[in-house]
This record gives sequence, structure tokens and C-alpha cells, in this order.
Amino acid sequence: MCGVFAVCGTPEAAKTTSVGLHHLQHRGQEAGGIVSFEGEHFYEHREGGLIGRIFNKSVVARLSGTAAIGQVRYSTSGVKHEDVVKQARDAQPMLKKILPFGTVALAHNGNLTNAKTLQLELALTGKVFETQKSDDEMIDTEVALMLIGAAIEPTLVGRLKTVLPLLEGAYAFIVMTSKQMIGVCDPLGIRPLMLGRYKGAWMLASETCAIEGLDAEFVRPIQPGEMIAIEDGKITSHTFSVKQPSRLCIFEHIYFSKPDSTLEGKSVMQTREALGRELAREASIDADIVCAIPDSGNYAALGFSQESGIPFAFGIIRHHYVGRVFIQPPDERDRDISLKHNIVRAAVQGKRVVLVDDSLVRGITAQRIVARLKRAGAREVHLRLSSPPWQHGCYYGIDEANVHRRVAKPYENVAVVCEHVCALTGADSVAYLSVDGMYRAVHGEPRNSTCAQSCDACFTGRFPTPLTDRCGGRIH
Amino acid sequence: MCGVFAVCGTPEAAKTTSVGLHHLQHRGQEAGGIVSFEGEHFYEHREGGLIGRIFNKSVVARLSGTAAIGQVRYSTSGVKHEDVVKQARDAQPMLKKILPFGTVALAHNGNLTNAKTLQLELALTGKVFETQKSDDEMIDTEVALMLIGAAIEPTLVGRLKTVLPLLEGAYAFIVMTSKQMIGVCDPLGIRPLMLGRYKGAWMLASETCAIEGLDAEFVRPIQPGEMIAIEDGKITSHTFSVKQPSRLCIFEHIYFSKPDSTLEGKSVMQTREALGRELAREASIDADIVCAIPDSGNYAALGFSQESGIPFAFGIIRHHYVGRVFIQPPDERDRDISLKHNIVRAAVQGKRVVLVDDSLVRGITAQRIVARLKRAGAREVHLRLSSPPWQHGCYYGIDEANVHRRVAKPYENVAVVCEHVCALTGADSVAYLSVDGMYRAVHGEPRNSTCAQSCDACFTGRFPTPLTDRCGGRIH
Amino acid sequence: MCGVFAVCGTPEAAKTTSVGLHHLQHRGQEAGGIVSFEGEHFYEHREGGLIGRIFNKSVVARLSGTAAIGQVRYSTSGVKHEDVVKQARDAQPMLKKILPFGTVALAHNGNLTNAKTLQLELALTGKVFETQKSDDEMIDTEVALMLIGAAIEPTLVGRLKTVLPLLEGAYAFIVMTSKQMIGVCDPLGIRPLMLGRYKGAWMLASETCAIEGLDAEFVRPIQPGEMIAIEDGKITSHTFSVKQPSRLCIFEHIYFSKPDSTLEGKSVMQTREALGRELAREASIDADIVCAIPDSGNYAALGFSQESGIPFAFGIIRHHYVGRVFIQPPDERDRDISLKHNIVRAAVQGKRVVLVDDSLVRGITAQRIVARLKRAGAREVHLRLSSPPWQHGCYYGIDEANVHRRVAKPYENVAVVCEHVCALTGADSVAYLSVDGMYRAVHGEPRNSTCAQSCDACFTGRFPTPLTDRCGGRIH
Amino acid sequence: MCGVFAVCGTPEAAKTTSVGLHHLQHRGQEAGGIVSFEGEHFYEHREGGLIGRIFNKSVVARLSGTAAIGQVRYSTSGVKHEDVVKQARDAQPMLKKILPFGTVALAHNGNLTNAKTLQLELALTGKVFETQKSDDEMIDTEVALMLIGAAIEPTLVGRLKTVLPLLEGAYAFIVMTSKQMIGVCDPLGIRPLMLGRYKGAWMLASETCAIEGLDAEFVRPIQPGEMIAIEDGKITSHTFSVKQPSRLCIFEHIYFSKPDSTLEGKSVMQTREALGRELAREASIDADIVCAIPDSGNYAALGFSQESGIPFAFGIIRHHYVGRVFIQPPDERDRDISLKHNIVRAAVQGKRVVLVDDSLVRGITAQRIVARLKRAGAREVHLRLSSPPWQHGCYYGIDEANVHRRVAKPYENVAVVCEHVCALTGADSVAYLSVDGMYRAVHGEPRNSTCAQSCDACFTGRFPTPLTDRCGGRIH
Repeated sequence: MCGVFAVCGTPEAAKTTSVGLHHLQHRGQEAGGIVSFEGEHFYEHREGGLIGRIFNKSVVARLSGTAAIGQVRYSTSGVKHEDVVKQARDAQPMLKKILPFGTVALAHNGNLTNAKTLQLELALTGKVFETQKSDDEMIDTEVALMLIGAAIEPTLVGRLKTVLPLLEGAYAFIVMTSKQMIGVCDPLGIRPLMLGRYKGAWMLASETCAIEGLDAEFVRPIQPGEMIAIEDGKITSHTFSVKQPSRLCIFEHIYFSKPDSTLEGKSVMQTREALGRELAREASIDADIVCAIPDSGNYAALGFSQESGIPFAFGIIRHHYVGRVFIQPPDERDRDISLKHNIVRAAVQGKRVVLVDDSLVRGITAQRIVARLKRAGAREVHLRLSSPPWQHGCYYGIDEANVHRRVAKPYENVAVVCEHVCALTGADSVAYLSVDGMYRAVHGEPRNSTCAQSCDACFTGRFPTPLTDRCGGRIH
Repeated sequence: MCGVFAVCGTPEAAKTTSVGLHHLQHRGQEAGGIVSFEGEHFYEHREGGLIGRIFNKSVVARLSGTAAIGQVRYSTSGVKHEDVVKQARDAQPMLKKILPFGTVALAHNGNLTNAKTLQLELALTGKVFETQKSDDEMIDTEVALMLIGAAIEPTLVGRLKTVLPLLEGAYAFIVMTSKQMIGVCDPLGIRPLMLGRYKGAWMLASETCAIEGLDAEFVRPIQPGEMIAIEDGKITSHTFSVKQPSRLCIFEHIYFSKPDSTLEGKSVMQTREALGRELAREASIDADIVCAIPDSGNYAALGFSQESGIPFAFGIIRHHYVGRVFIQPPDERDRDISLKHNIVRAAVQGKRVVLVDDSLVRGITAQRIVARLKRAGAREVHLRLSSPPWQHGCYYGIDEANVHRRVAKPYENVAVVCEHVCALTGADSVAYLSVDGMYRAVHGEPRNSTCAQSCDACFTGRFPTPLTDRCGGRIH
Repeated sequence: MCGVFAVCGTPEAAKTTSVGLHHLQHRGQEAGGIVSFEGEHFYEHREGGLIGRIFNKSVVARLSGTAAIGQVRYSTSGVKHEDVVKQARDAQPMLKKILPFGTVALAHNGNLTNAKTLQLELALTGKVFETQKSDDEMIDTEVALMLIGAAIEPTLVGRLKTVLPLLEGAYAFIVMTSKQMIGVCDPLGIRPLMLGRYKGAWMLASETCAIEGLDAEFVRPIQPGEMIAIEDGKITSHTFSVKQPSRLCIFEHIYFSKPDSTLEGKSVMQTREALGRELAREASIDADIVCAIPDSGNYAALGFSQESGIPFAFGIIRHHYVGRVFIQPPDERDRDISLKHNIVRAAVQGKRVVLVDDSLVRGITAQRIVARLKRAGAREVHLRLSSPPWQHGCYYGIDEANVHRRVAKPYENVAVVCEHVCALTGADSVAYLSVDGMYRAVHGEPRNSTCAQSCDACFTGRFPTPLTDRCGGRIH
Repeated sequence: MCGVFAVCGTPEAAKTTSVGLHHLQHRGQEAGGIVSFEGEHFYEHREGGLIGRIFNKSVVARLSGTAAIGQVRYSTSGVKHEDVVKQARDAQPMLKKILPFGTVALAHNGNLTNAKTLQLELALTGKVFETQKSDDEMIDTEVALMLIGAAIEPTLVGRLKTVLPLLEGAYAFIVMTSKQMIGVCDPLGIRPLMLGRYKGAWMLASETCAIEGLDAEFVRPIQPGEMIAIEDGKITSHTFSVKQPSRLCIFEHIYFSKPDSTLEGKSVMQTREALGRELAREASIDADIVCAIPDSGNYAALGFSQESGIPFAFGIIRHHYVGRVFIQPPDERDRDISLKHNIVRAAVQGKRVVLVDDSLVRGITAQRIVARLKRAGAREVHLRLSSPPWQHGCYYGIDEANVHRRVAKPYENVAVVCEHVCALTGADSVAYLSVDGMYRAVHGEPRNSTCAQSCDACFTGRFPTPLTDRCGGRIH
């Protein structure tokens, strides 16, 4: 997962972009990059770490210009100092010289499911590639730029209309040249891209929170299969695929997006409360308090409390100063020390606790917290997840390490999954929200089995695009 | 404000101390230091920044030993890179060679109100001082060590019994020599110091959360005027002043301490909920939702909601990746951009909002949030503070910049203060908790005017110790 | 100017390469890079700064493998910290994926005079380029790799035979794949590339000093138009151009190469002494001592002293701790403070000084030293340069800033140049070595006007290759 | 060994000091520090590393003021990054608050031989000390400041007159207060301190090269037992001990001082040439060339060549980019790779070489170079040292590690020492300059056995001061 942001038509484009990316930091903490254009030159800076540290005054001062695009990248743990330079190489936006357009910068959020196949085809015709051992997103980006270079249409919009239909998967692209800013959303709208406006400036961002966090006006989402081109302050809209209903990633509602963002016309925070209320209806339990695994479970927990009438309590405190922590707990094995969450003993002692989180992938955090709740004297702990079992992984931009280590296996039914999670975490009971419950909370109606209203492949295994690189093109 | 931690009798003393200090990080983000002792040598490391970054594997590996003490220091904004070396000089623990004890390390939380007077007296007798332009806490610490050196008793406990009665103010000291670990609490117990135990190891910490965050057992607080000496795994208790009732700083309950700590037998989080309930009783208002300024106002807001029946909502989202942020919003004046808090528009639009925080010093955050709530469509915003006006400042270890910039002036009555805060923040109404309401929530009864149960000088102006350096020794 | 080094067939290839590059550090101080291959993976590290600082133990430990190539790059002054990341991007070796060879790494020393023309042609056929605003050497390298990708021969040697004849200019390439190490020298042998051997390992280096500095055996130079391929420990030699007499850059003898290197069978140091002796014969003068501008002029000064009988003296001391110095002299204008050279007053006071340097480009150093010699009491200062006026610049890899700021203009005769230099430096007399004198010292005979024995374009304006990018292909 | 510098009465005192320290860098490469005073405040900066890197523009800009003092410290090898903070603590100048003078800064070059005894005495009277495990120089400095604090005279000059006679050993102090700058030289003038002048500004420096490197005028050395006080631009001279003949450290002539400095009226470089000439007279040998171990042996080698008529050659090249080098040669044992010196094979092949250095302490460098000369084909190598065997070590500020690892033992006669060095280095013959030869070169006459003209304790074992800390006060 990543986040992208762009602005054009404002005197401090890089500064605005740094704030926009700061608001998208939850979508990627590994590295960040900004490319700006000031009428003649492009300026670039990429670095490992958090936006708030990278783009200090002197760095931003070098990135002059009235247009800029940027990206934040997913965090992998344990990055050591000597890897910073390497990270910077892999960070986006990527810049290439392409005739007749000159420099073309591209920032990408998502994953192409046929990028390696396309790369092989291009390589067989003698193209050379920059990246070795780089991650998928860099290959995607270079393949897209190579295809733009190889296309023959005279305009960039024309070339994109030729190139984009060759790409499979989920993607949001922002492209910047000396003339234009272009925003692209994949044909099914799986990855979000939002249009905003502030006075004469246009913005593109992965989420509305970045636009509203800049006190700008959220205009509308880019539509599935739509390409927006901004030139001389004017917007034109183009389509590059047959019109299809949107299948926005449902995990954006559940986990990815920030609670203060708006998706498909709904407040993410309110959707999460609704997920908690559905969960309370489906999986009620007799208990004394509802606690969230903070902060991800806060909203569903409040919704659960509202629906069930069981009081909400701040029984688990999230440490403020987490981020990249290099300290380590002492080695003795019988301690189970968390550097991230603490229990409020007085709040849970002797209580039956409903413990709510939005989802469960590897189960490590839930396992630790259940153990610590019990040690703090909780009488019972009932784990409630406000989404279905995450059984099928994702090929549209999620860290594969998580896919491989997920608890819920594709072939298991929910009861078996719950049993495993009970055993793993030590919870007294475990329940997941159903697929239809999730749809009711998000869309107000159950899943439409003819044409699902969202991409829900991670829960259902129904992937809405071919997965050419992996399995030769099955469509679900 | 600072935090101190110590452990002795465990094979990984510095590692344990780094985790302990990490749990005390909310008490100081400027710098951290650890001194360890391994039977022959002392090892030391101090650096600017967060504990989780400073004490990485290789730094901790150098700090070998079975005993260690450490400190975290208060954060001042805008520290630049070139100041890191300077900070490191000023960080604690301080080490001195004192005969016949050899190396003596001291970590201090609090403030002596006669340190400058004592320093002058010592200097007049020919003593030379290390620190120039250093902060008060460093002067305190050096003065204390100088007095220990000048005393003539043969034992360190004996010298402390002579020296401590000379000190005025609020302090918690941890002293480490090659033989002993000593913990000291000031005669009124204004600054907290807690004793913990893990198997054969003893711990001292500013708060219980650091002890319990290490899965160790909280034994008891050090008493007012008590000195605990640990030697060869055994504890002895000594007193150095006439017994007086405890007057623990009431702001520890309200703001300083972590919600998962325990103070005077009570859960800090539950006390804060109780403050919110008292506030709801004293300053009720007809409204649609209760929102906290997160995370400081969370618990009082929930208490307010419980008592008033007005639903609690997460209307304001705190950015996770704050810490030291170097980016800056674009310069245009008409935007009021926050890098720290975002509003969930859908949650507040058209609503009458009770906005709860634990206290109000300068009012800047409240001002911004009220403005942004209104812009997001909140119909009314009623600001409720779960403590009385912070009118008198503090001379026991609080950043003086805050004292000077406080909104509430000593000579104003509450109604006038509320008027000013209304004008400043743009809130539709403002109310503070009363002093007696605060005491009811914290102690279960109103303020005892003969002998207040806490130090509440910042609210009442009644300072419980002489303020010799400032005013020649008035006692309230 | 740059330096390249490679080794294969040794267990610590990156370590060996780091030492080899350290010995080539005089050829480039801006940045360094190493790419290693360990049977399956390639590892890379590039960074701004000196080799001795970049390739510390932990960096080298990551670069595992039995084959490695590296490069050092030219120093530009005043690089600030925030540019380090940018430099790392531009540093070599460059890595590309090229089918069917997989990863191909290339390090380059020299300059192609038709790289921009070739880049334009490739771009017109739809190729996209990585580098924007990068320096010439990066464009050269990418163009070469693109051409290799576009060629159709099945082997890399075969492709290079097709591609290299398309390149104009002066170059030494080292190419590494998972199978082969290839060393290439341009058709005229303008840039040097040396072959060395240590037990079973082969080495390639810009100079013999890097080979002998590793106590390895210098085997022979790569010949003009020769390509050496090393595979499975065996060497094969290939040619890619019609055989032509070598025209090695004569400035390698005069200035570029390290005095302990061997070029065209001669010791560089001894050649420089010979240049000094020729100079003494051509431009004798009555004086008391011969001083060098250290360390570049040391050897010619000693030769001048030997031939003239005027005693050699260390009258000017070079500061050891120069490198990147960020301090600045106080601002007052009437001081002419050098941070690099000091005068030994007692050695020069009242003396007539012959001041010898190997060449004079901008004249700044000579100007300062003459002024300081006079201030220290030197009676006369006679500047003697052991090469002809550097009038025509260079298009084969020399920093263009120097070309533009050179004192000697192409249209001036030597007498006029000497007059200008006298006026600029304040020397009492100035003399340059003649072109034929230079050839006598280097080759034992005057310049062969039919076919010069060296590339001497910077002195004569006779460029031995087309300069397509600049002037559409004039050949001299 | 260290270097000190001070200036007062100039608008850019810290800038001037940074350049002055840069010229003294050969006296200490571990760390540097500057303290400035601008009329009201003192500013300070200390850091590990080279002056040219530490005192960049922004650091110097913070050190405002018209007076400044600074120090450079001895280099120990292999300092890792995490030790930088520790170094900074130990770096000088040291600052203390001392009534009635306020802040007092002190920079020290030398070593007190009774500092630990004095420290113990002070500690026994209840004084506490800052430094634990610090080096001797920091203890010296703190002891001196403590004594100043404990003295009772009303003026600083008065207190120094009381305090300095208590100190034994070799020292040059510079003291700065808000009012005065004071320079002190020990009673025997063992450590040098020079007075300079530039317009209205006064300078103090360990060597004249720092004064002349700033184009200032060298006025005179501070005399043995003299104290210079500068106040309001005026100088007064005071004495604090009975007048004794100077016994300046003779190793300053031989090795410590920079060749462009002047000592006791003589050019250091010319003295070193004279040492080489004496050596040629005493230890002539039939040979083909004279080579120096560069750069330390350069001047004596030239002198040897002048006297013997054997030609001087640059047969060994010193690497420019040494400083702190973190790369390491490959591990195989049969290579003897130097990162510091290279041999010019053509210059030495088949030759009988006289190899000259100024002194020999551990013999490691000589051993490596002899081996490499032989491998490069030198027929014979005759090692000649332009000073006597360094048999007795030094207690006046030399790195003790060197003392312990010296080759020449106190009880050996010269013939035995030469045999050992022959065996160690593999040289064909070894000869040292005699003590009287050394005195002839330095003073124009043999050693005066009644009262030696220099401190020559390292060669003769005759220490001119008590060594109280070590041996209870023997005086030689």
C-alpha cells in the first residue's frame, strides 16, 4: 500500500505536497519522495523515513515550483541506517526522459498483476531496465513509462489511452510533465484517487483527508477507467476503458483509509462504527465493557458499545512514541513485554471484556493483548473482528509477507478459523463479522453475488482482474 | 517535567532501563540518558531525541552491568541538529567523583526552589561549577552533588540526611554508586517515585506504568521525606524530615501521568473519567455529541458522556506520526492547517459539540480545533475543561515558557477567565471544573483548606514550600 | 576524470575493490561505488565522499561475492549534506537488467563525444532514459547499456563488437555480468586500463598503482581497441576496431596518474623528473633554490634541481588535513590566507626562488603562493611549468569548469601567455616547457607531427576523435 | 600532545580561531573545541574529528564574539560514531563558573605530573570532580580550575600566581574570562606558547605556523614561568616562578612542530635538515639514493643527501587521502598492504637505499616500508634516524600507548638497540643520531651536561621536573 499526492497551480507546490503526504503517512512509512517543476527544471528528493522528518525547511526550499507530485511508501520493519541510500533509489516518483515530452514523472499506488509479463515482453525486444531486485511497485512504474515511450501517439493522453488498456490490476497513477498533470484510476476503481481544489490550484490525492487536511475542497473521486488531465489550470476528463461499476477495495473502508476520510460518499469513521454495530448484532455476548485495540479498533468498538449497550472503556493505551523503535525488551522469556500497548489494570480487573479490532491478519497483537488483559485480571476476553476472516490475501498492493503469515487459510470455514484464533490468542470466544454484514455496513445491502459492489477478494477469493503474472490469467 | 528510572540486581540493567524510560517518554522528549555499573566500571550514554531511537542494540550493548539509572527530559520545540552535542552535555544522569564513595550518579525529577541560592553560597566558599547557561535541573543536580561532597558523614545515607533538609522544592532523586542505589522523595511527596520488584531485582520509577510495562510488580510509592537505600539486594528505609501528609502534585492526576499509571491507590484513567463526570455535573449543557481533544481529553470526555448521557464520538482524529515534525504548512494566511489533528466532518456536521480537554494553558490547540470544528459544520462548540483555570504557574519543574504564556491570569475570577477563553477560542461557551469538584474526583472529598490533600499551587497560588530563589522564602 | 577497478576470482572481492579504489582516489573524490556478485545476487553501494570513509567494515560485509567492480568520481567543491542522496543516484557502477544476460553492471572512465547524439537517436525510437540533469558520464553509461540491449547478437562480446564502433571519444569500460568480467579500451587507447593478477584472481584498474598497491602483479595494459573477457578464470582477447597506434592522454604522464604508477613502460615519477630536467634545459635561470608547489610539482622540481644544479628545498609545506574543509578564513580582504599551503619563511627569505609546478590551468594556486613567497621575503620568484600552456581544454572527461576558466587562450602564442601569467601571479618570470620538450621527456623524441605519439589535444588543439556532439564531427 | 590557540580584539574571533586550530591540526586529530565570548555570553562547541569539518559556516556563526580560545586533541585510532558524544564531553576548552570571575574557560597543552595527587587532596577536602575515566589532560584542567576557585586572591592573575607554583610538569595554559585573556608557560618552558599580533588583535598559539598562517605577526614566545595577561587590548607580563633557563622539549624540533614553524629563533625545517646533515656525518654509508619516510623524514633526508652527496629521490609516496580510513585490506596473510605509503618501483629497483626518518618509536612503519622496498627490488636498505633512540618515554603529554610499545628499552646501549631494530625491520643497517649530534644540530653545541639546553628526557631519562604522581617526586 502507498499514498500519492499532487498539486498544480500554487506557488508553494512542494510545501503543499509535503503536508498532503504527511496526511497520507498511514499509507506508507518506509520512504517518501517529491518531484517539483518550476517552469524549466524538475527538482527531486527521496529519502527513507517519515515525511515530517524528510521534508524540512531546507529540503522543501530546494524543491521550487508551482507543480509537484509525491508518494509515501509502505513500511517494512527493521530498516538499518546503511539502507537509507538504497531506499532512496527505490522511492518514487520515478523520473524518465521520454521524447517528445521531455521529463515525465510518475507516482503509483497499487499493483499491476501483469507487470512482470509485460517487462519480459519489453526486454525481449531489447529494452533495458533500471531496477534489479526492486519491489513490484518500481517494476510497475518503469514498465508503464517504457510503454509510454514505445507508444507512437503524439500526445501523452493519446499514448496513455493506448497503454493503460494493456495494464491489469489495481492502480492509481499521477503523471507530471512540464505541461500537464494527469491522474488515472484503474478500470474497476479498486484503488482510490480523489480530486481537490483550493482557489486556482488542483490537487490529486489517495484520500480526501489529505485534501481537507489542507483546508481545500474535495471535488470528486476519479472514476473507474477515468483519466483526468490538467493543463493551464483547466481539467479535461477522458476514459480509456468500457464503463464498469466501481469495485473499490473494501479494505479501504475497514482499515486502510484514515477515519477522517470520505469514501463512496460515506465517512470512513462512521462506516467503521456501523461495522461495529453490525458485529454487535451478529455476535453479541454478555460482558461488562467493550475495549478497542487502539487506535484501529476504536470506531468499531464504539459502534459495538452503542448497539450492545455494553459500556465503552479505554482499557488499552497505545504508546504515543512508537514509530521506529530500536530498543528491545530484556531477554528473559517469561515476560511478555509490549512497547506499543499498555493495559489499564483498574479498568479491566474482574471484568468480562469484549475486545474489538477491525481485522486480524497474523494475530500477534491480539495474542499479546489477550494475554496481558488476562494477566491484568480480566475475567473473560471475547475477541470480535469487524470484518470477515482475511483468508485469500491480496495481489493489488499489499505486503506479501502479511499474505503468507495470515492465520485464516483459504480452505477453512469460519468456525474452524475462529477455533484457531481462540487457540492462538487465548480468547474465551472469537467472532468475525459476516461478508453480508460487512456489505450492509458499507453499502446498506448484502453482497450482490452477480456483481459485487466492492473488491472483496481478500475475504472471498473472487479476484476481479486477471492475475497473469501468477496464474496465466484467470478472471473471477 | 522529567522522568527517572532505575533498576538493580538484574543481568540486563541498561536494557531494562531503556524500556522503563520508553514508558516514561511522555514525561520528557528532549533527551535521555542512562548510566550503568557492572562491578568495576560505570558506563554512560546521553543523547537528544526519543528513547526508542537513542538506545539501540549497539548502544545498550556498551552499557553493561547489573545496575542502571536513567532519565528522560522535557521537550522544547525546534531543536536543531547542531544542538545535539550541547543537549548531551546537559542530559542526566550526572556523574561526579566524590570521596570516599568514588563515582556517584544522580538523576533528578523536579525543581529545587533554592538551588541558585545554595549555588551562590557554595561558590562564595570557592567551589567551581560545571554548568554555564544550563537549565535549572542541571544546577539542582550539581548543587546536590556538591553538598554531598562537602558533607562529612562517612556514609552516603548519612550525608543525604544532612544535605536533603537543606533543599527546598519538589524532587525525586535516584542516586547510584558502586555499592548502593538510593531513591529519595521530597518531604511533601510532591514528585512521585515508585518502588517495583521483578524477581530479585528492585526498580525505581516516576510512575507505575514503567514498572508494570515491564511486567514487574508495583510494591509501593516512596513516602514523603523517605529515602530508600538498596544494597546487596536488601532495602532499608530512612527518613530525613518530620512526617508530613503527602501533597502529591494534583496535575499528575490530571495531565502528567500516563493513564495506565496508578497514583495514591487510584487508576489515573479512572480519576480522569471521574473528573469528566464531575465536570458534567457542574457544567452541563444541551448538546448532541461529546468529543475529546485527543488523546489528553479522551478519558474526561468519556466520563462527561457517561454522566450527561450525551453520546461520545471520535470527532477529532490525532495524527499518529507527529513527534518531531519539520514540515510546515504553506504560507498563505487564510488557511488554518493542523499537522496534528483532523476533524471527522461527518461526525460533527450540524451537531452541537461538547469539546472536552483536561486543562488549558495557552489555548492554542483549543483555538485551532474550535475553528476547524466550526468550519466542518459544527453548529455549536462548548469547551469544557476537567480542571480549574491554570492561573498561578508552577515552580516545581514545569517549563517556564508555558507559565509565562498561560491564558488565565492570577488576579482574574473564573467568570472573567471563561470570557477570555471564549473570545480567544471562539467557543460558544466555556466552563472549567471547580477546585472542589477536582478534589471530589481525585480524593472523594472537597479541598481541605487547613491542609490541602495535594499540591494545587498552579490552581490556587498556595505554594507548599518556600520559594527562596524567587521571593526570599514565603511559605503558603 | 574518474577511476575504475575490478577483480574476479577472489573470496573478498569487494574488500579488494575498496582498497583498489582507495589507491585511485586521486582520480575522483566526489563519490564512490562498488557492485559485487556472489553467484546469485548482485550487491551495490554508492555514496558521496572518500572511499576510506564509505566502505567501512559493515558496508563491505554486505557486498559479498567473488567478483566486484567499482568507480571513484571527480570532486566538485562545496557539496552539502543534503546532496549526498542525489550523488549516490548518479554514482557508478550503473546496473541494468538486459535480456538474455540478466543484470549487467558497467563502470566507465572517460567521455563519449557523441553520447548526446546517440541518446537522441535512441529516444526517437521510443527508448526512455533514466537520468535527468545528470552529468555526461551517466549519459554515456546509460547510452552504452541501451545499445547493448538493442543489439541482437547472442553473446555480450558479440554485442559489444557491434556497439563499441558506434561510440566516439575516450573511454575505459568495465562490464560485469553473472558470467563474465569484460574490460574495454577505446580504439586510440586515450584512457588507460591495466590488467593485473594475484594468484587465481584477475584485476582491471585505471592505473598500475592500484594493482601494485595490492601487492598483485601488473600484467599489461589493455591495448587500444581491445576487449578482454574473463570467464571461469580464463582470459580471451578481442578487437573491435582496426589497429591504430596508441595515443594515450599525455596529461596522464604529467598530472593525472599517481607518481608510483607505470605508463607505457615508464615510471610516472621518473617521467616527471625528466620533464623537470627538460624544463631546466629549456628555461634556465640564475637562482638560489628550487621549490615545488607540493605535491604536484615535487618531481619536476627535483628534476629541475638535478639538471640546473640549483639546490632543491622544501620551501612550501602542504597541509596534511585538507580534503573537504568547511572552515573559512576571516573576512578581511587584505589577508591572503591559504588553508592548504604554508611557506617556510627561513628557507626562502632573501632567496631567488624557482617555483616549479607540473601545469597551470586557472593559476589561482600559483598566484597565492607567489604572493606569499614574496611576503615571506623571497627576492625573486620564477615560475616554471613542466608542460606547455593548457590552451585547448579537453572533451575526454575533464571537468568543464576548468576548461572555461583556463588562463591560456587557444589563439595566444606562448610569449603572450607567459606575459599574462606573469601579470596574474606576480612572478618575476614565467616559462612553460615546449611541446617537443614534453615529448622528449615522455617519449624520448619530439612530437611526430604525422601521427602524434600521445593525445595532446589540450596543448595542441588536435583532437584525435570526432567531436560529434559539439561540432558535427570534425576530425583532427 | 595537543594544540591551543586564542585570539582577542577581532570581530571574527571564532573564525580566526578555527583557522588557527586548522594550522595546529598536526598536534591533535581526535577532537576540537572553541569557546567564544561576545560581551555578555559565552558560546561553545566541541566535537570529535578534524577542525576543517567541525567548524563549518553554521557552527562558526553561532560562536559570536571578539575573543575566543580553542584546542585540538591527540588522535587515537578507530573511534567509532557512537563515541562522538563522549569525545565531545572530554574535549576542551573546559568551562567553569568561579566567583567572583563568573565563567572561566581554560585550554591546556601538556601534562601535569602531580595532578592526581592534587586531585586526591582536593577530593579529601570535599570537592567533587566532573570527570570519570577521563584522560589526564581533563583531570589537569579541572584540578587547575578547582585550585583557582579555592584560592582567595581577588584577581585572577593573583590567584594564578598562588596556584601555578603548586603544579608540576609541562604545560601551556590559555585562560579566558569575560574580562581577560591569560597565557601561561610552565617554569621550564617545556611546552611552547607563542604570542602574535594582527592589527589590534592579540593571538596566542602553540606554534608560530598558526600565527603566520593567518598572516599575522609573530611577536615572541611566552617565557618559561611567564604569565601574559591581555585586558582591554593591553598586555602585561607577570612571573610566577624563579627565573630558570628554558628547557623546551627537543622533540618539538624533531617531530612535533610543523616544519614551517619557528622555535627558539630557528626554522624547524632547517633544524631538521641540519639533523640530517649531522646524521650523514655520523653514520655515512655507501649508497645510491636517499629516500625519506614521507612526510616526517623529508627534511632530514634532504639534509642527509646534501651532506653525503647521495642523490635524494621520492621513492616512497604518501597517500593524500589518509586521515580516518575505515577500509581494510583483504585478509590473506602473505600480503603486506599499506593504505598509507606506496613505493615507486622504478626509483628503487636495484638500488642501495638510505631510508631516513626523524625518529622511531614502535618501528611498524619502518618495518613495512623496508619490506616493501625490498620486494620492489631495492638491493640494500639502510635505516637512518635523525634522533637518538627513544628509550625513556615521556610524562609531559605524550600518548602512553606509544611509551609502552616503544622498541628501544631504557637499559639498552645504542648498539643493542640498532641490532633489535635491524632484526625487527629487516634493514641492512640501522643507525641513530647521537645525543650530542642532535644538540649540535638544534643548539649549535653539544649537550650541556650541567644544565641541558632542552628537555631531552625521552632520550636521556633525565626528567627536569618531579614526577610526583608516578614515583613520589624524584627530580633529575
